[in-house]
Amino acid sequence: MSKTELEVAQATARLMWANERASKEMGLELGEVTPGEASVHLTVRPGMLNSHGVCHGGFIFAMADTAFAFACNSLNRRAVTMHCSISFIDRVAAGARLSAHASARAVYGRNGIFDVTVTDDQGAKVAEFRGYSRTIGGEWVE
Amino acid sequence: MSKTELEVAQATARLMWANERASKEMGLELGEVTPGEASVHLTVRPGMLNSHGVCHGGFIFAMADTAFAFACNSLNRRAVTMHCSISFIDRVAAGARLSAHASARAVYGRNGIFDVTVTDDQGAKVAEFRGYSRTIGGEWVE
Amino acid sequence: MSKTELEVAQATARLMWANERASKEMGLELGEVTPGEASVHLTVRPGMLNSHGVCHGGFIFAMADTAFAFACNSLNRRAVTMHCSISFIDRVAAGARLSAHASARAVYGRNGIFDVTVTDDQGAKVAEFRGYSRTIGGEWVE
Amino acid sequence: MSKTELEVAQATARLMWANERASKEMGLELGEVTPGEASVHLTVRPGMLNSHGVCHGGFIFAMADTAFAFACNSLNRRAVTMHCSISFIDRVAAGARLSAHASARAVYGRNGIFDVTVTDDQGAKVAEFRGYSRTIGGEWVE
Repeated sequence: MSKTELEVAQATARLMWANERASKEMGLELGEVTPGEASVHLTVRPGMLNSHGVCHGGFIFAMADTAFAFACNSLNRRAVTMHCSISFIDRVAAGARLSAHASARAVYGRNGIFDVTVTDDQGAKVAEFRGYSRTIGGEWVE
Repeated sequence: MSKTELEVAQATARLMWANERASKEMGLELGEVTPGEASVHLTVRPGMLNSHGVCHGGFIFAMADTAFAFACNSLNRRAVTMHCSISFIDRVAAGARLSAHASARAVYGRNGIFDVTVTDDQGAKVAEFRGYSRTIGGEWVE
Repeated sequence: MSKTELEVAQATARLMWANERASKEMGLELGEVTPGEASVHLTVRPGMLNSHGVCHGGFIFAMADTAFAFACNSLNRRAVTMHCSISFIDRVAAGARLSAHASARAVYGRNGIFDVTVTDDQGAKVAEFRGYSRTIGGEWVE
Repeated sequence: MSKTELEVAQATARLMWANERASKEMGLELGEVTPGEASVHLTVRPGMLNSHGVCHGGFIFAMADTAFAFACNSLNRRAVTMHCSISFIDRVAAGARLSAHASARAVYGRNGIFDVTVTDDQGAKVAEFRGYSRTIGGEWVE
């Protein structure tokens, strides 16, 4: 990976994060972004629990989806989410510190397939997510 | 559908909603719950927008997932989400009023497949979600 | 549905079936095709059993995928499969007579989402399939 | 990986293959099986083409599904397919030599998530498959 691609990925991430409101409102934290990869972190608050007393799947999905969005846009082609699937592997309690790491599995034509694994601070898997993106024309940085 | 099944579904929904924190924190509103079906509503706030300036998929997923959870638990067998998929059909702007309606497609053994359609206030489709549940033993109401 | 749309759907189906080799080699039979819908039938032969002694999922997928292909092309816009998911609901023994029925759930831009339910001759569900198509330009009939 | 686990995986594969009829009828060839991984090969015949003149998705699904089945059963716990998703990346012509390689992504409780990549003889990706298994009790070899 050339230094330029890394710089572009990081400039794209800065631009996206500056314009992002939802992820911040949910308490997501952006981690490292490199070409085709991105990480997002989240500390689960009591207000994120569902009626079973565990973290609502919506927050786990949101952090995986945000990692996916930063990973697929890191290649500097504006891309949107077409479709996602997520499997919930283990319950998550309040106070847990989660990390979602997204990486490119296949990029072809205007399509991308990205895998995101969500783990807790012990490294145990919490969820597996797969996202399908499509570029919509345009770049983030020149 | 006997009146008793409807009463059980509604009692289950009341119990679940009383113990739900995440859905309320996200601003979701519980609509009607009947056996095997449930609706959730959401008005999209500016704080829900992502870096593309449209509603973050995490909120759309969360409302579909909550409708799914209420629909699959409405049968009074405690159930959790194993897996979900979602397709995003159209972008959603701030101010939009969304509704997610979940209904049972197949219930077999401990497994359930539920379809959730998310629409805007014009009835236009915003997302299609399919959720896969598994019962974990136990009932909500006697 | 005008008579013309139905005639177009059926002309498309005849053209596709005339050029189809795989479905015939697998023993699939084309049923009724109407705009946005299609049915495929299959009698499970002993040679279709897997190491568990039940029908291999590949045949059940193939019949659902063929029904999906005929349904999404019935609208006379050439379309291909981008992505599919399938859930296996019940085991299928040799001799079973299966039917797959596909219908459009959402058609937007160049994208389509189609649901396919596979049932046995008692009407019991064997599998639920969801297919995502994309048109590639061109029509089947003028 | 101890030699014993490898021997068990290979004994399981031999037992399964001896009882498999569908995969053989479709012309699938079993490749290497190790604990949690399996490969399947296929040469695309003219009879496998669909109405677009390319390999029918049912054959590509079937080879991925068979690789998945051998990978998830290689751990010597009898397992069945609950759910699968597949994305078609490129068209496949008659004469192509395809390989499907399955590997475990997550195994938890009775559940397994396996990824299968299908490539052509140039190593180009043809499809990405993800399979979800569930053990049903019982072992293949003592």
